[in-house]
Amino acid sequence: MSTQVCIIGAGPSGLLLGQLLHDAGIDAIILERATLEHVLERVRAGVLEQGTVELLERAGVGERMHAEGLVHEGFAITREDEVHHIDLSSLTEGKTVMVYGQTEVTHDLVERRAQTGALSHYQVEAVDPQDFDTDHPHVTCRIGGENIRINCRFIAGCDGFHGASRRAVPESAIRTFEKIYPFGWLGILADVPPASDELIYASHSRGFALCSMRSHSRSRYYIQCNAGDSIEAWSDDQFWDELRRRLPAEMAEAVTTGPSFEKSIAPLRSFVAEPMRFGSLFLVGDAAHIVPPTGAKGLNLAASDVHYLFEGLRAHFLEREDTLLDAYSQRALARAWRAVRFSWWMTTMLHRFPDNAPFENRILETELAYTLESQAAKTALAENYVGLPY
Amino acid sequence: MSTQVCIIGAGPSGLLLGQLLHDAGIDAIILERATLEHVLERVRAGVLEQGTVELLERAGVGERMHAEGLVHEGFAITREDEVHHIDLSSLTEGKTVMVYGQTEVTHDLVERRAQTGALSHYQVEAVDPQDFDTDHPHVTCRIGGENIRINCRFIAGCDGFHGASRRAVPESAIRTFEKIYPFGWLGILADVPPASDELIYASHSRGFALCSMRSHSRSRYYIQCNAGDSIEAWSDDQFWDELRRRLPAEMAEAVTTGPSFEKSIAPLRSFVAEPMRFGSLFLVGDAAHIVPPTGAKGLNLAASDVHYLFEGLRAHFLEREDTLLDAYSQRALARAWRAVRFSWWMTTMLHRFPDNAPFENRILETELAYTLESQAAKTALAENYVGLPY
Repeated sequence: MSTQVCIIGAGPSGLLLGQLLHDAGIDAIILERATLEHVLERVRAGVLEQGTVELLERAGVGERMHAEGLVHEGFAITREDEVHHIDLSSLTEGKTVMVYGQTEVTHDLVERRAQTGALSHYQVEAVDPQDFDTDHPHVTCRIGGENIRINCRFIAGCDGFHGASRRAVPESAIRTFEKIYPFGWLGILADVPPASDELIYASHSRGFALCSMRSHSRSRYYIQCNAGDSIEAWSDDQFWDELRRRLPAEMAEAVTTGPSFEKSIAPLRSFVAEPMRFGSLFLVGDAAHIVPPTGAKGLNLAASDVHYLFEGLRAHFLEREDTLLDAYSQRALARAWRAVRFSWWMTTMLHRFPDNAPFENRILETELAYTLESQAAKTALAENYVGLPY
Repeated sequence: MSTQVCIIGAGPSGLLLGQLLHDAGIDAIILERATLEHVLERVRAGVLEQGTVELLERAGVGERMHAEGLVHEGFAITREDEVHHIDLSSLTEGKTVMVYGQTEVTHDLVERRAQTGALSHYQVEAVDPQDFDTDHPHVTCRIGGENIRINCRFIAGCDGFHGASRRAVPESAIRTFEKIYPFGWLGILADVPPASDELIYASHSRGFALCSMRSHSRSRYYIQCNAGDSIEAWSDDQFWDELRRRLPAEMAEAVTTGPSFEKSIAPLRSFVAEPMRFGSLFLVGDAAHIVPPTGAKGLNLAASDVHYLFEGLRAHFLEREDTLLDAYSQRALARAWRAVRFSWWMTTMLHRFPDNAPFENRILETELAYTLESQAAKTALAENYVGLPY
């Protein structure tokens, strides 16, 4: 087989890149290790920046998103029993975010890819990017028990933190930056109406909590938990009780409880790999960087990587011009580090750190107090939340 | 002896409080351990917030300050060889800072006190605040070899970090927060014209540097040094060489060198003691909190403490109303923590930390990059630099 761009990974970044390339007349094959069902079942982020929304529109999947997604003009930050509103729209001259689950984005992109007749392979085993230090790399893999070699001009590693793409790079060529946070997020999905029309980020002496949603009838809630907690130790009732303890009274009362149909504990990590290009191999999204979920930057950062890479590939194939492709790593990393900083800052400010010195805790409390009272600091928060410009 | 307010310490905060009280017709005695000459020789901060300037005017010492002080509408931050200008005035709707040395402030306050015939005692030994858990505290001390007891209604502890006032409080009644930074500031004073009309805060891979001034003909320069460095290891020539290495070329060339007449190494520390009131004893300025010099908040924070305490004492003695006095600790601490946060943030962002993890260093570099490119973040920096409202 041969193609112009071999995309490893059929998550939202691989699918989005594939669609943009396809629509530009650039040939791409997508290889995915998991089954289509598994990819569609992954529960992930749900808040899209305006730039991500525009990129999805450009990829032809704007219709259902605009029909079913919820436009949010602000969110709440609570501090113990106080409620503060962050009016994103007025702080950023009209910008908003879109609440629309990653699961839905993936679903729409899969449908669109099927409509346009482009090719994705699932259950692909032993994916291995090779010779990417040359201009004629290839990817070997096994599809349906058969060994396949895909010759291509470029490889896009959209296969996440644990994927084969970053692991194919020699350790000496890559520099990594990492922070592990000393707590996790216990999250549930339940088919109950959300406690509020907007998201609620709750800073509380018992720990952080987040009230989020997927639709008017499906809620997504999280509470900060101990890093070592097991999911079995948390019954639904215990979850709801603890969630409500961390919210101001009127918000706790507005929480509708019900059985969870998804419950999981996620560790919190910041991670960046540099550079994001190795010859003919490009890392995209989680393959290159991980952010903690506070502030919902993960999917949006993958989308901006796709934007930069698509611009570069488009100029290479259609205009025989490599300036943008050569700038990919630098452009993507500059924006990634800004989002990594913002996610780190928001995580640090809103969570309780079990081993912090008293001085550090007071600094974080003061950071939150200052942020909530200063128009300038709130504007900085808002401009990061809606997404810095590409 | 007896008085209404016994002020311990004749530094700028004790003198300023004493003058405001005197002018309001409230009787106060000032006790100082050192000689007048020693107090006048102390070299400290030199950047006054507008609130501090207004308070000094109110105390009748505005004239020479306005004649000789330098109004600064902005400052520079350099990052390696890049120069960025922070236009304080346009970012804060016209606010500025005043460059006028603490030595000059102290001098003016001493003169003014002498003119108004109010009493300060110098070389006072064994100062000991007592019975301040009652409404009739007293201070014992030795003046000119004689044991003296000063009965008073209130005691104002303006005697600095190492003074007797905070040490007189039982340890169980006080909570402290502290951070020691792993470096120091090597500073010199020299009678040479400053490198620039405005201050230059230099972030550089070799370490932080600050180009400051006292007047058009007297410069104050600092460089970040190792915590354990001895002053003997730094000749003037070595200082000038290292300073210039940390500045962009055009600024390094603008540095006029000359013999230093003051050279010292200061450790960097953040410290807060809570509360700031213990019955009839009030802690003011450095007695309650220390900030690293980055951002020049120390003297300004002492001035805002004096403002809150004076308001409270005035209402107590002249209006028989204790609401403001009862709110002193809470009001002063709220503002102090904001300045402590700002000083910590500016110090952390601009210095090199020898033991930081690579992730932390990149976060700090990104914090600086974001601050310099975001109007909102620059506004937050500027509003803190010119001083948050009282």
